Amino acid sequence: MPTASLLAIGNELLNGVVRDANLFALSQYLTQMGFSVDYAAMVRDDPTKIAHGLLFLLAQQPDVLLCSGGLGPTEDDLTLSALAEALQLPLALNSTAADLVENHYDRLLTQHYLTQRGPTFARIKMAMLPLGATPLPNPVGTAPGVKLEHQGTVIYVLPGVPAELEAIFAASIAPELLHRFNPGTWAEHTLLVHCDDEADLAIPLRDVARRHPDVYLKSLAKPFPAASVEGLQVIAGALASTAAEAHAAAQATLDDLRRTAEAAGLSVGEIHASTD
Amino acid sequence: MPTASLLAIGNELLNGVVRDANLFALSQYLTQMGFSVDYAAMVRDDPTKIAHGLLFLLAQQPDVLLCSGGLGPTEDDLTLSALAEALQLPLALNSTAADLVENHYDRLLTQHYLTQRGPTFARIKMAMLPLGATPLPNPVGTAPGVKLEHQGTVIYVLPGVPAELEAIFAASIAPELLHRFNPGTWAEHTLLVHCDDEADLAIPLRDVARRHPDVYLKSLAKPFPAASVEGLQVIAGALASTAAEAHAAAQATLDDLRRTAEAAGLSVGEIHASTD
Repeated sequence: MPTASLLAIGNELLNGVVRDANLFALSQYLTQMGFSVDYAAMVRDDPTKIAHGLLFLLAQQPDVLLCSGGLGPTEDDLTLSALAEALQLPLALNSTAADLVENHYDRLLTQHYLTQRGPTFARIKMAMLPLGATPLPNPVGTAPGVKLEHQGTVIYVLPGVPAELEAIFAASIAPELLHRFNPGTWAEHTLLVHCDDEADLAIPLRDVARRHPDVYLKSLAKPFPAASVEGLQVIAGALASTAAEAHAAAQATLDDLRRTAEAAGLSVGEIHASTD
Repeated sequence: MPTASLLAIGNELLNGVVRDANLFALSQYLTQMGFSVDYAAMVRDDPTKIAHGLLFLLAQQPDVLLCSGGLGPTEDDLTLSALAEALQLPLALNSTAADLVENHYDRLLTQHYLTQRGPTFARIKMAMLPLGATPLPNPVGTAPGVKLEHQGTVIYVLPGVPAELEAIFAASIAPELLHRFNPGTWAEHTLLVHCDDEADLAIPLRDVARRHPDVYLKSLAKPFPAASVEGLQVIAGALASTAAEAHAAAQATLDDLRRTAEAAGLSVGEIHASTD
């Protein structure tokens, strides 16, 4: 199973001003594409802290590292310089990136969104990439995404604006990941178990997990009294080369859990597929 | 300014099943209490990955490290054993923690939420703490929180259920942090700047930031055309020993930005205090 790690950069994420959306969206996309997302981190707009975060995540040797934020024109957009510093690469003007930035301004001028280009230093800043990096077109914003390979990890750097991140991911990254890692299809089913106390489910869950070691099985704890009223949600997720096999494995695991929980005196609800 | 780091533990956070709420809530509380939250991370329910995350965050020597998740009775609740392993401490039955667990079951039985206690192994598991740790009462759930000091960092471990995390934070942790670090008061003001292109704001922002080095100043990028319609939100946050001083510093910085942006031909909106 290929692995992925994520890094989101921005003071606003750690000040409680903005609730993370990018790590959550990328976790969903990558999981559904069959990756195990092992680590995700958020760091402030500080070159040393960005570099520490990058080096920690790279040290775990994920197949893919996706970073978001800090690509824009303002002085606190430091991600590419921190990446260059962490990997001891020089920053250099990338002519393809410079063309992407200019083309974006051409579009905005043609469509009368703007009456003039941004300042020269800002346009140059967004085209300065670590040496060896490839820019990725940004269909909805100015700053291009960036791709860089490093010691077996493919690093992608994306803007922090969710619409730009999602557009670049969909257009450039998802097709490449599917082609390169071909990880399979992920399916998830859920089952509601009516028990007053999560502790009562501990042994059934453990036994079922041991009988289905390749299926991801997890109960989502809830506070009293919600757990007894609404039930505890148990998720079974499976990865397989076809969707049918993945669904069958998740379903079989929850069928087993239903029998095991009922034998332990618990009542259970219906099994639902939560992914297609 | 005291520093804090955060770690959230749980596969569901990295599978895209649950969108993080705990890191976001803790970031807000700690920022408003005057901490700089430097790093936040999420890791899967895997003892090695939990230990890697803990050791990375501890290596940055924060004053406080807050962890959430993985304290419950099920077999995938691994946080305390991973913490003990990472710090090379034995796990031992803590009698105060055992009493807290039993008292919680007493309350649930008395109030007729339950008709019997949870399984013995589950009650014992929640009372096995790294040697030297102190349990923190959980006003709304079974598993106690945990406090442990390690090489200048105070580590707090909290349940992942948001209601339990927030109750323990409010009852036991916030008063202790305020007493111990007395960091001051944080105030934040926001200003809406109407410009078509964030790049046009780069120089005014840079100049104002240099004139107010102790104030946190940040523009929140928006995609086109939302930026030109709604404006770009700029946040100024300041820490001071009194609320009045913190508000004055944030306000003075945005007054300066308003003048600087207007001189650069941009139109700006009203300044609002976003914290009290």
